[in-house]
Amino acid sequence: MAAHPYAPSDLSIPGFIPGSWNFTTILAIFGTLTAFFVSATWLLVGRVKGLQKVERLSVCWWVATGLIHTLLEGPYVVRTDLFQRDHAHSDFPTEVWKEYAKGDSRYAVRDSCIVAIEGITAFLAGPGSLLAAYAIVTRRPYRHTVELMVSLGQLYGCIVYFGTEILDGFVHSLPGMLYFWFYFIFMNAIWVVVPFLIIIRTFLSLHKAVAQSDGRLKQQ
Amino acid sequence: MAAHPYAPSDLSIPGFIPGSWNFTTILAIFGTLTAFFVSATWLLVGRVKGLQKVERLSVCWWVATGLIHTLLEGPYVVRTDLFQRDHAHSDFPTEVWKEYAKGDSRYAVRDSCIVAIEGITAFLAGPGSLLAAYAIVTRRPYRHTVELMVSLGQLYGCIVYFGTEILDGFVHSLPGMLYFWFYFIFMNAIWVVVPFLIIIRTFLSLHKAVAQSDGRLKQQ
Repeated sequence: MAAHPYAPSDLSIPGFIPGSWNFTTILAIFGTLTAFFVSATWLLVGRVKGLQKVERLSVCWWVATGLIHTLLEGPYVVRTDLFQRDHAHSDFPTEVWKEYAKGDSRYAVRDSCIVAIEGITAFLAGPGSLLAAYAIVTRRPYRHTVELMVSLGQLYGCIVYFGTEILDGFVHSLPGMLYFWFYFIFMNAIWVVVPFLIIIRTFLSLHKAVAQSDGRLKQQ
Repeated sequence: MAAHPYAPSDLSIPGFIPGSWNFTTILAIFGTLTAFFVSATWLLVGRVKGLQKVERLSVCWWVATGLIHTLLEGPYVVRTDLFQRDHAHSDFPTEVWKEYAKGDSRYAVRDSCIVAIEGITAFLAGPGSLLAAYAIVTRRPYRHTVELMVSLGQLYGCIVYFGTEILDGFVHSLPGMLYFWFYFIFMNAIWVVVPFLIIIRTFLSLHKAVAQSDGRLKQQ
């Protein structure tokens, strides 16, 4: 039955064409691009005066996550024929998802819950992340709020993402370090840990601002 | 095949036992309880000095939605045998979900995406809603932030809820005004519209507080 490498083997993926790139190539490109954009952002943002180190780090995060959401997760949502594309029509995002689905085959069958979450991530959290980066650099009064909103959306998506797979009994991942632990657990855990830290930081910043604003009102 | 009233008829619900209460009874109880708690909250909160009308209304919303999340959606998440309960072990939440599933049968088969969203709603948004009510009444500096966070969570849940059903082609609802339009569309649209309005209000309040706080820093 299985004309595909994914789990479980009785999964039906009509017209599936396997990826043609090696996973080391895919990881090397992903790692290089991410490192380039994070370093470039770090250096560029260093020129902005009055920015704390935690804000400079946050801008790097927002640029990286914003680009991943729009340029990598965007194509997944839009291209419904991604897993049926032949090698002539393949490219980086196509190869990424054909490889990533070894850690979560729900991507290969376009599970509606996955597509809905990816849609929100690509088209709301993606632009929202880039807006957060802009807002921090230009010190807009909505900077903490946008950071909080996007982080909360990312965290909500991850809870549903992991929660549904726990309820399904972890049947959609190939076993082993690379597929289950690195692709499925680690690559998603990043979007639990970092958003959680940003939620705490922005919650405290907003708490302080409202406390000051309330105090000012009382004085009047 | 179908030993159940839900759509589609080839859906398998092993051990299903139908509800025993009439839908008018269920709606009357739901309407009466909601009206009672909203009115009681409205009157009680009226005694708090310095509260704007929009805050008084918001407290009513948070109490109502908090009670619905915890007392109605909580039992759905916890009781995995809800649709297999006989009449001797039936009660209000059980009857509500057996009736509501006519508008969305994914509840009857415990679709993992539905259970994950309901879990977040019952155990995070539920207590969060009651905390929002408390925070508004006591003017805590985190009141806008908690309102924003819970509302965003509710809105995210609704987008995934409607999004997945659009992707699935609206196959899980019985046709007609009551099941499709009232249960599935209207009863969920409330949790799109109200959270959206609260997000706008709290976003603007936080924007103003941060702008004041930033201005104060500049003056120093």
